[in-house]
This record gives sequence, C-alpha cells and structure tokens, in this order.
Amino acid sequence: MTDRVDANDYGAAGVRLLRVLRQEGRHDVKEMRLEILFEGDFEAALRKGDNRKILPPDTIKNTVYALARQYPVEAIEEFSLHLIDHFLTYNPQVTLVRIATEETIWSRIPHGGKPHAFSFVRAGVEKRTAILHATREETAIRAGIDGLAVLRTAKSGFESFLRDPYTTQKEDRDAVLSTTIRADWLYENGVSEFGPLWHGVRQLLLESFAEHESRSLQHALHAMGEAVLGSFDHIREIQLALPHRLYQLVDLAPFGMDNPAEVFLPVEEPYGVVRATLRREPPQEA
Amino acid sequence: MTDRVDANDYGAAGVRLLRVLRQEGRHDVKEMRLEILFEGDFEAALRKGDNRKILPPDTIKNTVYALARQYPVEAIEEFSLHLIDHFLTYNPQVTLVRIATEETIWSRIPHGGKPHAFSFVRAGVEKRTAILHATREETAIRAGIDGLAVLRTAKSGFESFLRDPYTTQKEDRDAVLSTTIRADWLYENGVSEFGPLWHGVRQLLLESFAEHESRSLQHALHAMGEAVLGSFDHIREIQLALPHRLYQLVDLAPFGMDNPAEVFLPVEEPYGVVRATLRREPPQEA
Amino acid sequence: MTDRVDANDYGAAGVRLLRVLRQEGRHDVKEMRLEILFEGDFEAALRKGDNRKILPPDTIKNTVYALARQYPVEAIEEFSLHLIDHFLTYNPQVTLVRIATEETIWSRIPHGGKPHAFSFVRAGVEKRTAILHATREETAIRAGIDGLAVLRTAKSGFESFLRDPYTTQKEDRDAVLSTTIRADWLYENGVSEFGPLWHGVRQLLLESFAEHESRSLQHALHAMGEAVLGSFDHIREIQLALPHRLYQLVDLAPFGMDNPAEVFLPVEEPYGVVRATLRREPPQEA
Amino acid sequence: MTDRVDANDYGAAGVRLLRVLRQEGRHDVKEMRLEILFEGDFEAALRKGDNRKILPPDTIKNTVYALARQYPVEAIEEFSLHLIDHFLTYNPQVTLVRIATEETIWSRIPHGGKPHAFSFVRAGVEKRTAILHATREETAIRAGIDGLAVLRTAKSGFESFLRDPYTTQKEDRDAVLSTTIRADWLYENGVSEFGPLWHGVRQLLLESFAEHESRSLQHALHAMGEAVLGSFDHIREIQLALPHRLYQLVDLAPFGMDNPAEVFLPVEEPYGVVRATLRREPPQEA
Repeated sequence: MTDRVDANDYGAAGVRLLRVLRQEGRHDVKEMRLEILFEGDFEAALRKGDNRKILPPDTIKNTVYALARQYPVEAIEEFSLHLIDHFLTYNPQVTLVRIATEETIWSRIPHGGKPHAFSFVRAGVEKRTAILHATREETAIRAGIDGLAVLRTAKSGFESFLRDPYTTQKEDRDAVLSTTIRADWLYENGVSEFGPLWHGVRQLLLESFAEHESRSLQHALHAMGEAVLGSFDHIREIQLALPHRLYQLVDLAPFGMDNPAEVFLPVEEPYGVVRATLRREPPQEA
Repeated sequence: MTDRVDANDYGAAGVRLLRVLRQEGRHDVKEMRLEILFEGDFEAALRKGDNRKILPPDTIKNTVYALARQYPVEAIEEFSLHLIDHFLTYNPQVTLVRIATEETIWSRIPHGGKPHAFSFVRAGVEKRTAILHATREETAIRAGIDGLAVLRTAKSGFESFLRDPYTTQKEDRDAVLSTTIRADWLYENGVSEFGPLWHGVRQLLLESFAEHESRSLQHALHAMGEAVLGSFDHIREIQLALPHRLYQLVDLAPFGMDNPAEVFLPVEEPYGVVRATLRREPPQEA
Repeated sequence: MTDRVDANDYGAAGVRLLRVLRQEGRHDVKEMRLEILFEGDFEAALRKGDNRKILPPDTIKNTVYALARQYPVEAIEEFSLHLIDHFLTYNPQVTLVRIATEETIWSRIPHGGKPHAFSFVRAGVEKRTAILHATREETAIRAGIDGLAVLRTAKSGFESFLRDPYTTQKEDRDAVLSTTIRADWLYENGVSEFGPLWHGVRQLLLESFAEHESRSLQHALHAMGEAVLGSFDHIREIQLALPHRLYQLVDLAPFGMDNPAEVFLPVEEPYGVVRATLRREPPQEA
Repeated sequence: MTDRVDANDYGAAGVRLLRVLRQEGRHDVKEMRLEILFEGDFEAALRKGDNRKILPPDTIKNTVYALARQYPVEAIEEFSLHLIDHFLTYNPQVTLVRIATEETIWSRIPHGGKPHAFSFVRAGVEKRTAILHATREETAIRAGIDGLAVLRTAKSGFESFLRDPYTTQKEDRDAVLSTTIRADWLYENGVSEFGPLWHGVRQLLLESFAEHESRSLQHALHAMGEAVLGSFDHIREIQLALPHRLYQLVDLAPFGMDNPAEVFLPVEEPYGVVRATLRREPPQEA
C-alpha cells in the first residue's frame, strides 16, 4: 500500500422531491433537492471493490421518498433530521451524515384577493437552504439562503481605498450597489421554529442591506451579519458570501451627454467577492 | 453568382442596461437586455466585404445607451419605439428593425411596512418581454412574459386519450399540473397603457391557470388564451407555449406504502410541449 | 366561438437516449436528445378537453425507445426517418411531424496508440443536429451543427463601415475574430450518406473560417456558405447564424504599456449577430 | 464588540483573459478565467468602513492584464506564480493569496493535413485548472482538470453491496459506467514542467478509466488516483470527485421487447457521488 486515503465520502446528489400535503380546503407543497453524503469505513470498497459496506446511492434516494411519505414535511431542517436519524440508526458503518437541501419556494396565486387553495407560482429567485452535519455524538444545523439578488441606488460609496500603480478605480458615491446574497447560519442546540426564524433572518438581511450607509461591500456585509447576531439569540454564527455585481456607469461623453448616475451597464464578469463568518463572542471573553 | 441570399439580418444582442430614475424621495429602476436586428440592403457586405452600408453592432449598442439617457424609460415597449424611430429615421439602408427586450423585474424591499425608496430585491423568476417589428409602413408591438412557473395540485386530469401499443400512460386525476408559461400577445394600433396591460394579462393568466378545470394542458392553454382575448379588447392575438413539467408519482409499493398523490419526483426531461396562437375572430365572420 | 386557433402543435421534448451497439471486440455509442412535435386535427382537445385524438407525449417518448431497440442507429437523420414513418403510418390525425435531434459526440479514448474498443470521452463542445419536417407528401431533411466555437488571430478586419454620431468603433486589423458557428443545411431528396456528409461540411466550415481573409463577419459567413454549396452538390441551401464573440483589446496605456494585439478581454455580452440563408441558384435563372 | 470575524477574504472573480503570442508564422493563444482572493488585516474595513487597507478588486483585475502583457503566459501555474509574487511583494497587509484559474482549451484547426498557424477550435468540454495558495512562507501548487466526461460500456459492475428494506438496486454487469472527472493534484516543490505533466495526468486518468475492471465507482476512483501517484513522483496527493452519471436501462418489456444493455435513458438527476483524496504514504511509515 503506497497511498493513504483521506477526505473520502460518497452518497446521492440531485435527489428531487415535491411533497404535497392535502388537507380539506387547502393544499401545501414543498419542493426540494437534496444531497446526502456518508463518511465511514469504506476503504475496502475503494481498494478492493468490496461493496459490503456500501449502501447504494439508489437506496439513499429511495429512503428520501419513503420518509417523505411518513412525515408531513414542515421544514427542510426537520426533514433532514428525520433522514439523519434513520441513516445513523440503521448504518453502523457510517460515522457522519451530511445533508444539504435547497428548497424551491412556491407561493399561492392571489385570486379574488385571497391566496388560492391549491394553485401556486414560483416566487423569488432565491433558494432556502439547510446544511446538517451529524455524527452519533452531535448534530450541527445550518440554515441559509442562496441567490437573493438585491440592488440599491443611494447611500453607498467606496472611497479612501488603497492605491497602487494599477489602480484606476474612481471614488464613488451614490452609485449602484448590488449583490446576490448567500448566507448560512448555525443554530444553537434545541432550536425548533425553523420556518419563522428563516423568514425573520431573510427580512433582516433585506432591511439591513436597504438601510445601512455602507462604505464598501465589506462594511455592508458586517452590518448584515451583526444585525442577525444582534436580533436572534439562537444563532451562534453567520457566514456571508457577497459577490459585488458591477453596474458600470456608461460614459456618454463621446456623444456630448453627461450621465448623472442614470444609465448603467450590468456586468456579469468580472465581479468582486467578499466573504466572512461572524461568530458570537462568548460572554466571559467580552 | 451561384447562390441567392435570403433571410439575412444582423445586429447587436445581449445589450444590457440599468436605467435609474432619481426623483426626490424615490428612485425607480428598470433593468433590461435587448436584441436589435436590421434587415436591409446588405448583399455587398456579404459578397464583397463592402461595409459601407453596415452600421456597426457597437454603434447600435451605443445608441441604446444614448437614448436611455434621453428618455426616462417607463415601459420597454415605449423605449423600443424610440429606438425604432431613431434607426429608421437615420438609416435609409435598413428596411426592417426587430427589437426583442427582456426585463428583469426588481421590486422594492418592504421596510417598516412600506416599500423602500431606493432599495430593491429580485422578485419572481419570470421576465417581462416585448418584441417589436417595424418597417417604414407599419409597426407590430408584441408584449409577453417568459418563465412564469406555476403548479396546481387539484382539478386537473388527463383521460380518454388515444392509445397505441406503446402507450403506458395512466388515466390521471388530481395529479400535479405544472408548466412554465411563455406567452406573447399582439396589441392593436394605438395602445399605450403598456404597464397596466401587462400586469392585467399576467394576473389573468395566473387566475385562469389556478381555476380552470383542465382535462389536458391543451385545454388549459386554450382557456388561458380565451380569457385574455375575452378581457382585453386591444389584444388581437395571443401565442402560448407551455412545457408540461412532469411531477411523477413515486411508486412506494416496493416499500409497502401507498402514495395518495403526496410524494412526487420532479422530472426536468423529458417534458411535454403544447403551443398555439389564438386570434380574435373578425366580427363580420362570427 | 370568438377565436381562431393557429400555429398549434404539441409533442415531447428533451427525450434523451443512449444507444449502444455491442459487436464482438467493438462497441459503438450514440447519445441524442429529441424533440418531436405533431401538427394535426387537435381543435377539440383545445376547446373542449376532448383527448381522443391526442397520443400522449409519454407514448411519443416510449416510441423512441422501442424504435431505438429495433434499429442500430447509424445516423440521427436515419433514426428520425424511422420515427416519422412510424408516426405518420399509425396516426391519421397527424398531418405533419417535426423532429429535431441533437447528438452529443463521444469519441474513443486513445489507449496504447489505438482507439479503445468500449471507452469514450466527450470530444468538442459542439452538437450534431438534424431537423426533419414531414407530411405524407414530402420530407425535408436538414442536418446541422451547433456550438462550434472558433477563433482566429490574423487576417481579419472590419473597416470602412457606416458611421453616425454614436459610432466609436475603431477600424480594426489583425484583431481577434471569434464566433460560435450554428449552421444547418437542406439535403436534396435521395441523400443517404449522412455521416460522411456531416463530417465533410464540418471540416469545410472550419477550413473556410481558418483561411478566408474576411472584412467582416458577414463576409466570413458568406464565404463559409458558398464553400459548402460549391463543394456539396446534394445540399440545396445552408443557413448560418454567427454570433460575433467580442475579444476586446485591453487598454494598458494607464499603466504605461502598449498592447500590440496581445492581451484581450473576452466579453460574453453584448455580442454582434449575423444570419443568412444561401440558396443554390437554379441553373436556368443563372 | 459582540462578534468575532473569521474566514474573511475578498478579491476579484470572473477575471477573463485571452493572451495571444504572435510569432513569425505561428500564433499561440491561451484563454483563462481567474479568481484571486486575499486574506489579511481587513477588520477595520468590515467594522468601520475604513478602506485604507483594501486594494480594490478593480485593481486586482488590472494587475492581471498588466502582468499578462509582461509575460508570454506559458502555463496557468506559472502565470499564477507571477501574480502571487507581485501581490505579496507590494501588499504587506495581505497574508495569503489564493488564485484559482480555469483554462478554456483551444486547439489548432487541422488544415491541409497540418495544424493551422493562427486559427483555432474549442476542443473538449473539460477545463484545465490550477489552484495556488501562497503565504510569504510557502506556496502550494495544485493543478487539475474539471468536466472531463467519460463513458464505458463494458467491464464495469456493482454487486454484493449492502441492502436494507429500501434497496431496489439490481446487481449490475456490463452496464454503462459514466462520470465527469474532476481531479486536482498537489505538486512537490520545485516542479516546473506544468504543461507536459498536465497532459500526462490527463492521459493516465483516461486510460485508467478505460481499462480498469471496476466493481464500483469507488473502485474506479482509487485505481485512477493510484495510477497517478504511481507514475508521477512529483505529485504528492490527488483529490478526485466523481459524479456517477446514471444511464438507466429502459424497460421495454411492456412493448414485448427485451433490452440486452442496448437502450439507455441518460438521467441528469439524481446522481451518485464519490470523493476521496489519495496521499503518498511517507516511505518511513510504509
């Protein structure tokens, strides 16, 4: 044996599911896509093709459907917990289960001023996400949001930055600031109100983006994270990744026109990136 | 010369633009992506590389920005009309201009119960579209919607269809019906209330999808088109293309479970397709 | 009845298939994705939800698999002809069948200097395509190619074009010319050597792009089409759509550097577009 | 201060570049897309909007173009090393630079039996990648490949796996095995022949996939990694991530047909996943 195996896992990805809850006068739907990965004792499979400890990815997928039938699927975090419980109970060869879920959000079609009982429309481009890691000792629950595109046209700037011979960036005020928020946050043990919490964090991220007088995307990121940690005691840390979607002021001078921050070219690439994790400082160290 | 040239056009595509309207206490934004194509007398360019009648695509793009500065951009149909007027006026070599625009929809972030003055969030996955064809004699204005994903969980069926030896499809009731609506409609001359009309048609398409007891996607398509022609006098015809997004009932029998239309597998491909154009029948022939 | 139905068709799209031909010492594979659309007498289905003339899209899909089993699948044009024959024979309610196929190209892994007998690698980003329209009277066969990305760094220019006040484009020599070729061509009746013809046209398009001293993308397009019509008697017309993928010379002057056509920024959008169809001129009219 | 900042970095992503090397009688091109991230002392920027230690992402992008002008760009690993050297030399506030590059591969158009001097075609769907991490103390160079799609139709199986009540997977022989290889490997210090090494590893991965009689995708992964470590002394470890692209045998029994592994449905989702890192075992511990 001349090699050591590390960072080995396997599983099923792209497992898609629509769960319909049919109650009198009202249906609910939840559409999700899961990735389920196992760590464990799989070295014989890798080295010798000995599959006796390999539960097929196809079985992992079937388990998702069978458990979806048994549970009404209220929140993706809860459904993930059911799956984890099942896999760790019946698979001693597995030491860690990781489940990442993204939910496609359907909202009721408004009809005659009221939300419709069983007809839905896709609302928003963002996904609700959940990432759970679990061993037999502990379970970490991270909830999140991905693809939440936002844009503001005032009270953002980028000034007094470092300059070198390749710097041509101009000092900027009242330009467009736009990003596509990806965030996930770690819950304290014992949290259970996953739905209201998620909606609360989403709204706070939006309001914080809307109102903060940011001097950079870094500055905006920190304000968003701090707002969440400051308002939700049950969130231990929050991780944010913000691409800086560039809206470039079009130079209209060649046509004899000014451009008082009115006409912009949206640029897909290149884009800036800022990432950071904010952790609640333990009280004793404060 | 051994060949005849036909169906020749050229132009600029993927022209992206964000227009900000800055008023005291309130900003408005409109983000769009245009494709502008010219037909005309370009045979010398093709055959001999004689570019004297070719206005560069780069100039077409510049024109979009220059005109965006001059007009406040209230509706993509109006902006297209300004562009058409410009191109046909200054380019005698051009006989037809075709402008297709798709608008990315931004809505205001709700903040303290009110829509924010200058901060926005992407709302909905659909695009608002407009397609205009214009010669010096006439202009056709088509408005549309693309990517409006909808889903219902009751009152839809597919029964009594044609069968042949390769048919395994089951008669179906109360299953999931889902599609991603693409529609465009042709306005009568003289229409100008493009914004309210678009929102009205969108809402009617949604309500018609929500309520119609459809026996097939064909049946649903016709109901949607008929509702629009019946409610909007200024719409001469409507074209609908509906992919049938399959939500396949998962067979849980191998696990000793029933599945009363509760657990479905969303299938990307294959999918069904239905397309049709509904034209208002002239009264004299009715 | 207040509306007239027009442009109505339906069918199955995204029908994916891998066909393996297992011969002693050598396997062949063909992967394809089909869209099959029917026109016919479907008005009762649209208006009343009467499905008696609607063969389900699911059956159309099943037919693809059943016929794939019966035929060794040598070329996508031939396989489409088998499908058309089947559908028109058994479906009197159908007046026209349209089949569009795209083939994902797998080539053999080179191994010990020889092509491997049963192991393959995806080669090239382009797709081979075929579009067939057939009624009971006639069948039109179009073969094509999509997504063939090419680039040249010499002997291309764009000069002496039309200018207006919004023109800032510079006269250009020896810049980068790049496009992603989409072409399809119509065969004369009776053609059968679909594989060699396709490879011949592909090679000719590449060589024509490589060698032609083009004064514009229009000029290049015409040269490519003319080369194909000039070399292949059995091709009646060819349709070309060429996006002009922009490689923009980076301005390094702010950093005290020149840029002799060496450093370019690839731009996804905007891009130019040229489209044209070249038809063989009937001899009597020449 | 109630939060601690962690995992903070920022930079520029989607930086695209085409570099042309113009030599007499022969041009060379290299197209790449870079992501450059800095770690360092940025806490004041996050907390207070103090940008004095923030080199703008726009400057990072400009630096790529300026350095591309200065270096002929022979391999993406070398170009990354030049960038790292520049950033660490002139930016004391930066403690770590991470550069991830993907190269789009252009190959010469064959023309008259010879490779063309200045005309190119996109070859293959895969990207060549490089990921470098550097502090002032050490630099880690990882080369890689992404999106290398392969498929085999014989000598692969999946048998004797673990079963539970949700297992319906059949024992499988001579089915289709397909994956899209993503691999990256870590070089020993002092390596410089990046081009030949990359081509060597690519060929070995292909051959290993082609020939190995694999009992699972795990088994195939290990064989591929072991082959690379066994053949290239200068590679310290290799990381492989293999999605199991499912080609599902179509059940033709309802139509009275068998299907001897000839007709398959390619399934995008769900798919299996296997990941592992193989590290060279230090000799003293062997």
